[in-house]
Amino acid sequence: MAPLSVLEELVDALRCLPGVGPKSAQRMAYHLLQRNQSGAQRLSRALLQAVEVLRHCGRCNAFSETEVCERCTSSRRDPTLLCVVEMPADLNTMEQTHAYRGLYYVLMGHLSPLDGIGPKELHLDRLLARALDGTVQEVILATNFTNEGEATAHYLGEMLRVRGLRVSRIARGVPVG
Amino acid sequence: MAPLSVLEELVDALRCLPGVGPKSAQRMAYHLLQRNQSGAQRLSRALLQAVEVLRHCGRCNAFSETEVCERCTSSRRDPTLLCVVEMPADLNTMEQTHAYRGLYYVLMGHLSPLDGIGPKELHLDRLLARALDGTVQEVILATNFTNEGEATAHYLGEMLRVRGLRVSRIARGVPVG
Repeated sequence: MAPLSVLEELVDALRCLPGVGPKSAQRMAYHLLQRNQSGAQRLSRALLQAVEVLRHCGRCNAFSETEVCERCTSSRRDPTLLCVVEMPADLNTMEQTHAYRGLYYVLMGHLSPLDGIGPKELHLDRLLARALDGTVQEVILATNFTNEGEATAHYLGEMLRVRGLRVSRIARGVPVG
Repeated sequence: MAPLSVLEELVDALRCLPGVGPKSAQRMAYHLLQRNQSGAQRLSRALLQAVEVLRHCGRCNAFSETEVCERCTSSRRDPTLLCVVEMPADLNTMEQTHAYRGLYYVLMGHLSPLDGIGPKELHLDRLLARALDGTVQEVILATNFTNEGEATAHYLGEMLRVRGLRVSRIARGVPVG
């Protein structure tokens, strides 16, 4: 196969983005080259910096620029509460409610045996170590209300309850009254 | 306003892509960081290289790595035919038919007065200079069959015919028989 041209390589590289097929990738490449070269340069820098700088917070597992993120070291948080969410976006959603003042643990996914993602692939041992730090008293399971999210919550509930932690599932639906 | 974090900067930078809103940008950023860091690095390199290397071909106006692109210098093309298309993707579509052996001119858009894109913004003087090189005898207008594409074809037709060129509009629809 002939080596890709610079344009073909860009179109091909854009397909690493989720939900972007060959047509969208082509449209994106033309748009950037024709209308927004400075945007393309900015995106190039942002990608490189993110890959270089970001890691997982050693406590909550969310993306962080430091070993342990700011939220986890905040003294204004209640360290006896630990809320388990699937993704950083879910954490943001929780934060936007301003109703929760405890700490978080981000699974970065959910159990999905069909995709080969079991307790080991999700590194649930890390969550266990985090929840059993001696300070956490209650774990709130805030995984999604999908089949996988429910199954994950069920599994986590069993795993944490037998170790003496109080476990609750986040309420579902619209509050009444 | 506080400076953006590395993650926020990446999400924000991803929004330079057409059709990508805040939600998609977030999803893309998480996906790259969590599942495809090498893809992110590749995309970063491809973007930078494309912006640095690619320019508009001096003859056909398509993206090219050289002053004049390979297609325009090919001796196996008929230089008396010039096909005008809106975007490089349209050129590719024409090429896939293997039915056309002439040269191209890529407008990189269409006339759209409501968006402030007139003959000057489309640099139609360059097309004119290209079509009046003394070799081109026929111009085939292959702009899209949208309102803007039709209006652009009409405008170009008038502009080129008064200068003595043969002008035709590409056929529309599915061939019968």
